[in-house]
Amino acid sequence: MRILMDDRGKKYILDEGQDFHNDLGIIKKEELENCVPGDILKTHKEHEVKVIQANVNDFIELMERKCSILLPKDIGIVIAYTGLGCGDKVVDAGTGAGAIALHFANVVGKEGEVHSYEIREDFTKIAQKNVKQFGFDNITIKNQDIKEGIDEEEVDLIFLDLPKPYEMMESVFDALKSGGWLAVYAPYIEQVQILNRIAKKIGFNEINTIECILREMEVKSKGTRPKTRMVGHTGYLSFARKL
Amino acid sequence: MRILMDDRGKKYILDEGQDFHNDLGIIKKEELENCVPGDILKTHKEHEVKVIQANVNDFIELMERKCSILLPKDIGIVIAYTGLGCGDKVVDAGTGAGAIALHFANVVGKEGEVHSYEIREDFTKIAQKNVKQFGFDNITIKNQDIKEGIDEEEVDLIFLDLPKPYEMMESVFDALKSGGWLAVYAPYIEQVQILNRIAKKIGFNEINTIECILREMEVKSKGTRPKTRMVGHTGYLSFARKL
Amino acid sequence: MRILMDDRGKKYILDEGQDFHNDLGIIKKEELENCVPGDILKTHKEHEVKVIQANVNDFIELMERKCSILLPKDIGIVIAYTGLGCGDKVVDAGTGAGAIALHFANVVGKEGEVHSYEIREDFTKIAQKNVKQFGFDNITIKNQDIKEGIDEEEVDLIFLDLPKPYEMMESVFDALKSGGWLAVYAPYIEQVQILNRIAKKIGFNEINTIECILREMEVKSKGTRPKTRMVGHTGYLSFARKL
Amino acid sequence: MRILMDDRGKKYILDEGQDFHNDLGIIKKEELENCVPGDILKTHKEHEVKVIQANVNDFIELMERKCSILLPKDIGIVIAYTGLGCGDKVVDAGTGAGAIALHFANVVGKEGEVHSYEIREDFTKIAQKNVKQFGFDNITIKNQDIKEGIDEEEVDLIFLDLPKPYEMMESVFDALKSGGWLAVYAPYIEQVQILNRIAKKIGFNEINTIECILREMEVKSKGTRPKTRMVGHTGYLSFARKL
Repeated sequence: MRILMDDRGKKYILDEGQDFHNDLGIIKKEELENCVPGDILKTHKEHEVKVIQANVNDFIELMERKCSILLPKDIGIVIAYTGLGCGDKVVDAGTGAGAIALHFANVVGKEGEVHSYEIREDFTKIAQKNVKQFGFDNITIKNQDIKEGIDEEEVDLIFLDLPKPYEMMESVFDALKSGGWLAVYAPYIEQVQILNRIAKKIGFNEINTIECILREMEVKSKGTRPKTRMVGHTGYLSFARKL
Repeated sequence: MRILMDDRGKKYILDEGQDFHNDLGIIKKEELENCVPGDILKTHKEHEVKVIQANVNDFIELMERKCSILLPKDIGIVIAYTGLGCGDKVVDAGTGAGAIALHFANVVGKEGEVHSYEIREDFTKIAQKNVKQFGFDNITIKNQDIKEGIDEEEVDLIFLDLPKPYEMMESVFDALKSGGWLAVYAPYIEQVQILNRIAKKIGFNEINTIECILREMEVKSKGTRPKTRMVGHTGYLSFARKL
Repeated sequence: MRILMDDRGKKYILDEGQDFHNDLGIIKKEELENCVPGDILKTHKEHEVKVIQANVNDFIELMERKCSILLPKDIGIVIAYTGLGCGDKVVDAGTGAGAIALHFANVVGKEGEVHSYEIREDFTKIAQKNVKQFGFDNITIKNQDIKEGIDEEEVDLIFLDLPKPYEMMESVFDALKSGGWLAVYAPYIEQVQILNRIAKKIGFNEINTIECILREMEVKSKGTRPKTRMVGHTGYLSFARKL
Repeated sequence: MRILMDDRGKKYILDEGQDFHNDLGIIKKEELENCVPGDILKTHKEHEVKVIQANVNDFIELMERKCSILLPKDIGIVIAYTGLGCGDKVVDAGTGAGAIALHFANVVGKEGEVHSYEIREDFTKIAQKNVKQFGFDNITIKNQDIKEGIDEEEVDLIFLDLPKPYEMMESVFDALKSGGWLAVYAPYIEQVQILNRIAKKIGFNEINTIECILREMEVKSKGTRPKTRMVGHTGYLSFARKL
C-alpha cells in the first residue's frame, strides 16, 4: 500500500482514482496512478510530496478508528513473549478497529491466519473496511460473540482484549494447540486477579502478568532526558500456556 | 522442533538418536523417535515427561549461548515499532548466540531472509550451530565485520547491537529500502546521543529513542503486587527511518 | 496560617481584613477575623466554607509563583536521603518562588536556618513575599549569585537547582560541615555527568544519582490501575557528601 | 552521635568506653574518648579511621534490626506529602526496629513528639535500645496494640505499616487534628483497595495512593545508564486527610 508524506512529515492515505489535495496544494490523480515508493511528486503550489510504501504502523495511524487502539509496545511484547511467527494461526477478540489483527496478520503472513471476533456491528464494519483497504487477505473479521464459542482449532495464539476475558477460559483452552498461548490485555488489576485464578484452575501453565512502562527519551542539543510527559499505564499483559 | 518437559516444568532439548536421562530417570531413544507434541512419556522411574512443540523462546532458553542475549521485551518492541512482517529482509549485527536472528527469522518466515554479521569466530560458530539445530534455513550467519560493508540491498530492517553502532550509518542508510528502519540497542546514553546526531546528519527521519521498563506482577492468594526485584535497565532502543 | 476550603474542595488564602468572595457567595471580614481551624462558616448563599490550618503544601499550592516548582516527591527524597532534621542549617539556590525553601524551613524549624540565593530580582521579591505571608522567620532570601560565594559556614545541606550546578563545587565543599550533604536537582543527564566528575575530583564521597518515578494509582469501583497519564520526568537528583 | 569510618568507607558505631578493633587494627578507648567529628585517627597498623557526626541514615544503617525497614524514598515522600515539620506530633505503628520513628523524630525535633506502637515485645526492646543509643528523647516506644486505641490527641501525622491498616480507621480519624494526615505503607494492592473504601466511608478527604519507583543511575567513564538491577516494588503509599 502506498501513502503520501508532505514536506512537514504529515502522512495521507493515497485514495486511488482521486486527486490529492491539502492546504499545500493539489496533485492530479493521473500523476498518482503510476507513482512508486521513493518518488517525489509536487503539488501545484510546488510543495514536495513523497510516495512511501506503508507498513502496518503507517496505515494504522491513518485508518478509521472509532475506538482506542493498543500501543505497539504492548503488541510487540505479545508477539515476542508468545513467539508468534510466520505461518501461525491466531484468534483475537474484540477486534475494535482491527489494529492488533493487522499487526498479527503482518507477522503470520499468507500462510498464517487471523480470526478476529467483534460483538459490535459498527466496529466489525470499520475493521473489515480497514483490512480490505490495507490489502491483507489472511484476516477474517466476524461479527460474533467469542463467548458463544471459538470456531478455530489448533490455534497458536489467542489474544483477548475484553472487559471480562476470564469468561471463556475453557473454550480458549480447547481451541489452543499444545504449546499454544493465551495473551490477555486488561487495564484493571481486578481483571488480572480473576483471570489468574481461573487460568490456574483450568490447567494452564506458565501463567504470568507483566506491565510495560515505556519511556521516550528527548535527545536535543539542550540536553538529554526522559520526556516530561508520558503514558502512565495502558494495560496489564497476562500470559498462560497450554502445555 | 520437539522438546521435553519433566513434571517439575524443566525443559530439555530432545537429542535425536540418544536416550534421555536426568535425575528422574531414563527414556529410551526408540521411544523418543516417534513421539509427537502432546505425548506424555514415562521414565523408567515412572516420572511423566511431556513432548512439546518448541517455539523460538523455548529453544533460545535451552540453546548454547556464551553471551548475554536480548530480552523478549526489547525484541518485541523492535518488531512492533518497525512493523516487521512475514517476507521481510533483515540484517543484524552482532549475532552473539543468534537469539535475535532466531526471533527475526521466526517472523519473516521462509519467504523472508535474515543476514547476521558477527565479528567473533567463536560466536559465529555457536550461532550457526543454534540456527541449524532449531531448523531455520532463512538465516545466514556471517563471520564478517559489518563495518566493512553491508552486502544486502533493499533491506526492511537493520538491527544493530554493537558498541559503536554509529560507525556505519552511511552504509546502513544505503542498504535500507525506502521506508525501511534502523533499530539500535545500546545500553549507554552516550551511544544514543552520538547515534541521534549522526542519524540526523545522514538524512534519517522519524528518529527516536525509547526505553522499556518491564514490571512483573506477583498474583498470589497472599496479595497482588509488582515483584520486589526487577531488571532496572537493559538498553535504550533507538529507531531511525529512511524516508 | 489559616486557609479556607469551599464545599467543592477548592482552597483559598484567607486575606486578613478583607471579605471573602467567590462564585458561591460572600463571607464578611468580621466573621473571618476570629475563626479557628475546624470552624465551618457559611456564605450568604448558604454554601459551607471550612477553616483549615494550612500546612506548607496547602500554601505552596496557593501562593504566587511565576516559575515551575519542585514536586514533593523530589523534595521528600532530598530530605530523607540527607537526613535533614530539626535545627539544621540549609543553603539553597536558586530560590524561584521559594517552594523548596519553605519545605526546608518547615523541617529545620525555629532553631534551624535556611539561606536561599536567587539571581533574579523579580523572583527574589516573590519569594520574600511568600515567606512573609506564610509566616516563617527562619528563611533569608538573598538577591545574590551563589557563584560569587557562599556566606554561610558549617552547613548541613546545600541544595542546588541551577542550570550549571557544577560551577561552584569548591565553595560548596568549603561551606559544608563535615558529614554535610550537597543535593542537586538537574533535568538533563549531561548536567549529572559533569557534576559527578567534578564532585569526585574535589573530594566528595558517597556520590550518587537517582531518579524518582512516581505513579499515582486510580482506585475506583470500576477497578484499580495506575493512572493513564503521568509525569514522565522532572529531574535527576544527585547527592555528594563531605566526609 | 559519633561514628567511625575506615579507609574503605565502612562505618562503625563508636562504642564509648571500649577499644575499636577490626581487621585493619586497633584504636585505644582513651584515644576515642575525646575525638570530635572531622578527626582522623590511626589504628596500630597505620590505617586511617575518620570520626563522623552520624546523621539518622548513618545510624539506621548500623543499628540492630531484626526486620526489614522502610527505604528513604518512601519515608521522604511521606514527609513531603504530609508537610511534616519541626514541632509536629506523630503516631506510628508498627515500630519494627524504629527506623521510621527515628526519621520522624529527626524532623519534628525537641518540640515535637513521636509515639510509636509495636505489638511484639522483642521489636519493642530493639527499637527502645536503638532510640536510646542514637540519643533521641522525643520518641516513646510502646509495646501496645494500636488496634486497642490511640492514646494521643490532635496528632499531625499517623503513619501505619501494618498488615491490616484499615482496621483502626475510626480511632485514627479521632486522634488526628483537623488538617492532619494519615499515611499508610502497604505492599499489596488489596490492602490499598480496602483502605480507600473505608477511608472514604469514615469521612477522610484528599485520599490518594501513589507508588515511588526509584532508579539509580550509573555514571562511569564507560558510560551512563540506569543501574541494571533495581528494587521493583516496596509498597504503595496511601494518604488521607482529616479536613
